[in-house]
Amino acid sequence: MKIARFLTEEWMNDYERQAKYNLTDTSCESLTMQDLLKLDPHALDDVTLDYGWITGLSELRNEILSMYQNQDEKTLALTHGALQANELAMNLVLNPGDHVITIKPGYQQFSDYPRFLGCTATEIELNPSDWSLSMDTLAKAILPETRMILFANPSNPTGTWLDRTQLEQLVDLCKEQGIWILLDEVYRNPLYPDQEAAISDLYDKGISTSSLSKIYGCAGLRFGWMKACPELIARVHSMRDYMLISTGPLVEQMAFVVLQNRQSIIENVQKVVAENKAILNKWLESTPYFKLNMPEKGTVSFLQLPEGTGSTKFAVDLLEKTGIFFVPGSTFGMDGYVRLGLAKKHDDLASILQRLDKFTQQWLEKNGKEDAQK
Amino acid sequence: MKIARFLTEEWMNDYERQAKYNLTDTSCESLTMQDLLKLDPHALDDVTLDYGWITGLSELRNEILSMYQNQDEKTLALTHGALQANELAMNLVLNPGDHVITIKPGYQQFSDYPRFLGCTATEIELNPSDWSLSMDTLAKAILPETRMILFANPSNPTGTWLDRTQLEQLVDLCKEQGIWILLDEVYRNPLYPDQEAAISDLYDKGISTSSLSKIYGCAGLRFGWMKACPELIARVHSMRDYMLISTGPLVEQMAFVVLQNRQSIIENVQKVVAENKAILNKWLESTPYFKLNMPEKGTVSFLQLPEGTGSTKFAVDLLEKTGIFFVPGSTFGMDGYVRLGLAKKHDDLASILQRLDKFTQQWLEKNGKEDAQK
Repeated sequence: MKIARFLTEEWMNDYERQAKYNLTDTSCESLTMQDLLKLDPHALDDVTLDYGWITGLSELRNEILSMYQNQDEKTLALTHGALQANELAMNLVLNPGDHVITIKPGYQQFSDYPRFLGCTATEIELNPSDWSLSMDTLAKAILPETRMILFANPSNPTGTWLDRTQLEQLVDLCKEQGIWILLDEVYRNPLYPDQEAAISDLYDKGISTSSLSKIYGCAGLRFGWMKACPELIARVHSMRDYMLISTGPLVEQMAFVVLQNRQSIIENVQKVVAENKAILNKWLESTPYFKLNMPEKGTVSFLQLPEGTGSTKFAVDLLEKTGIFFVPGSTFGMDGYVRLGLAKKHDDLASILQRLDKFTQQWLEKNGKEDAQK
Repeated sequence: MKIARFLTEEWMNDYERQAKYNLTDTSCESLTMQDLLKLDPHALDDVTLDYGWITGLSELRNEILSMYQNQDEKTLALTHGALQANELAMNLVLNPGDHVITIKPGYQQFSDYPRFLGCTATEIELNPSDWSLSMDTLAKAILPETRMILFANPSNPTGTWLDRTQLEQLVDLCKEQGIWILLDEVYRNPLYPDQEAAISDLYDKGISTSSLSKIYGCAGLRFGWMKACPELIARVHSMRDYMLISTGPLVEQMAFVVLQNRQSIIENVQKVVAENKAILNKWLESTPYFKLNMPEKGTVSFLQLPEGTGSTKFAVDLLEKTGIFFVPGSTFGMDGYVRLGLAKKHDDLASILQRLDKFTQQWLEKNGKEDAQK
């Protein structure tokens, strides 16, 4: 079977190595194995490389469960990253001919993987003035054959975020028809589970997926999980026998170290995000070229280019001339933007932004768009 | 979509923890992280937990390529275990309505995952006198809609093994119609690539999958790969963007340590297998109850029970009374057998086998099968 090329990932693969200033990464500063071994110097003393407990280390499972209101052991399955958790959820819930609803701009896995499975997908455009999701538009998009609504919350690349009240509205829309809601919650801050609700805590057909890749800075562990009703989780465990067997004792042990220390790890990230946001907000007041809806949550945002600017050519030229690296909005099916990450440490973000402005001025002059300011 | 329960894996999950004497495991004695860090004490000094190179650490890729005749960089993709490599191959090559051919007894992923994808599957029964695969029977099973032939080589649980000549016969059967051949080569010894040929070295539509789980004793790394034609590997890399992004720098670094030291690791396993085979062969001469086609290759075999013995009840009773653990043939759709692993170290295998005989005598008496000897 054929699947569409994953444009964002391909762009990252093709160009990321040339980046001198990576302003587009969605993860926070990555931790190293040495960082983790400092947190627990004995973590690897007793790790045997067999399959381990097939459903995963029980201490690790308990740490994950503690980040949700529903802590039923039967509601959790471990996976290789949130991506695999999403894949499993879609594989097990969707049938050919089903209809799904996702948001645009959004993560391509949520539109093209359902299509790969023989479903149709409606992509609801977010309101570009504040990247909000209109519940009315969403309600109107529901068809009799709609089986799943799925997106990331907070979302990539816009930072769009539904709070508990909005999630409850969403559940109300889905309940009668029994529509599943799959939310990728990799950007959710789990330190305050009451404030940032998980969909699996609000709805029996709510599926929460997450991982250590974004706000924990441990993408390299390739570790994630799914929280959902016991019936779906039992089916995930059956399917895991065909797809992965287990996530393995090495990764599980290191994931346990990360989650045990999540308070300090996440607080460090929040500090970096706050510092970056302060610098960016100051720059946004002065830049004649760029506009941004600064998101309240998450570690990503979607930076608006001067009107009429083709994001692909702009991003390629910018990288070549300055080493500043962005994923263009075109890879999200929405030109005129680039994805701006908020959680990376930079030596001097303010001066990188000055270089960005200077390049943009010259680029617009050269490309005959002198007047294409914001 | 629904998939059949994976019987062997479920049995392992349900019963393995009660095992005192695990005679059924397909892996060799598992290495520990300490074992690997002794081989390379600095392996973790410089591991940053970002996604790493998306297609994988180049030194690691080169080690893997060196185990094949075709060392074209474009013929290799890394995965979370051979299981995921198999899944990717089936997902990308098969379409609903296609027909596949596999062997029985064999690994359930190869019959039920294609069915999950909407294909039909023919399971060719191996000849129970020597577990050989009849090329004539296979040739007759090919239909116009046959798109893939797939099994493990050497195979689980029988140890059935096709040498280069037989693989070339198989390729001849498939060439004209362009049928793909997917061989899971996790039990293949890669030290002598000329002797134990990889299907991907013999046929442009040959797909070799493998991992570090079996003969390397590192199942816990959950690391595997696929070797295939550049066109399919390019599609695997596209699909990986939706399913895993990367295998991650931690696992890749440790996989590199394993493969750099594969000569000594595999020679140690071969020594254990040889010792176990010697003890088993001696026992087989004397046991009045069991028969075995001792396989030439691989780390598994299929032990024949006394005639008329139901493998499920026998395995459950045996585990309960003696702590001796087997996966019953019933989970492979073939009663009257249990899977016997050959590569685990046991404190005193001969005396475990004596206990097995003694239990069997009593069990047959109790279950009214006094005369059910071999």
